[in-house]
Amino acid sequence: MCFARYGYEGATVRRLEEGTGLSRGAIFHHFRDKESLFLALAEDDALRMADVVAKEGLVQVMRDLLATQDGADWLGSRLELSRRLRTDPEFRERWAERSRNLTLATRARLLRQREAGNLRDDVDVDVLTAYLELVLEGLVSHLAMGLPADDLEPVLDLVEASVRRAVGGPS
Amino acid sequence: MCFARYGYEGATVRRLEEGTGLSRGAIFHHFRDKESLFLALAEDDALRMADVVAKEGLVQVMRDLLATQDGADWLGSRLELSRRLRTDPEFRERWAERSRNLTLATRARLLRQREAGNLRDDVDVDVLTAYLELVLEGLVSHLAMGLPADDLEPVLDLVEASVRRAVGGPS
Repeated sequence: MCFARYGYEGATVRRLEEGTGLSRGAIFHHFRDKESLFLALAEDDALRMADVVAKEGLVQVMRDLLATQDGADWLGSRLELSRRLRTDPEFRERWAERSRNLTLATRARLLRQREAGNLRDDVDVDVLTAYLELVLEGLVSHLAMGLPADDLEPVLDLVEASVRRAVGGPS
Repeated sequence: MCFARYGYEGATVRRLEEGTGLSRGAIFHHFRDKESLFLALAEDDALRMADVVAKEGLVQVMRDLLATQDGADWLGSRLELSRRLRTDPEFRERWAERSRNLTLATRARLLRQREAGNLRDDVDVDVLTAYLELVLEGLVSHLAMGLPADDLEPVLDLVEASVRRAVGGPS
């Protein structure tokens, strides 16, 4: 995604043209300005994430983030995002709605896993949802700061195991 | 801490005087400028955290963060921190050293817990350390964004339980 790769400031219209395969005219025919495009792309990202969550769970979203972080200017986008969240109430509201959708998708997936007998049943699903989201926030922050991430796969294995039902046999 | 409460920009010398109980003269006698003071206070914070880690573990540090987040302008400090990490190699090096100290304190504490038979022994201590640090990053990011945190206590219970030895009896 262009904004992740170059940061909000670096995502010039030229790069947006390359990234989306659309012409400048087409881009601004659909989107009033860069800000609207940023929101639309973020919305698109969120939908894709909710889709992966529904099929494979939030830990898989984290694994995908780990796999595709390469070369992305996460920090630029995150700084822009934080700044906007703090200063723009309308943006904050739209963002909160997106977060709620991801929460709902995660919760629904966990409920299905519980019904299938794959989930630990001694902890409330809401707590498990908040737990996975907190780890996701940590991962995003970690990647955004550009900290080394090559040792995080077994950490995500541990996270996944800690929401699963503990069994005597193979897990 | 003054920088956390008012953000880097908001931590005027007047507030620093109030917060530290030192006079302006005393402050700048000891610290070349506001930046040096920021680093010294951050260092102080890191030492206190390492101390809590040694005695009570990293999850307790997270519980303390949850308890004292009230009114702090976390985001301001975090944004300043992220910006500095990205643009100032010398600062990044000093910060990395501090992070290493916290990692070492966490690892040492976990090793003692393992010797005492309190820790799960099917996962490497380095993985458990990275896991706890990732959750801490998530928590700090969560608080910095000003997201609701009143439902996070049971999440931290889950985190604590997931590094402990699973036992048939009381945990």
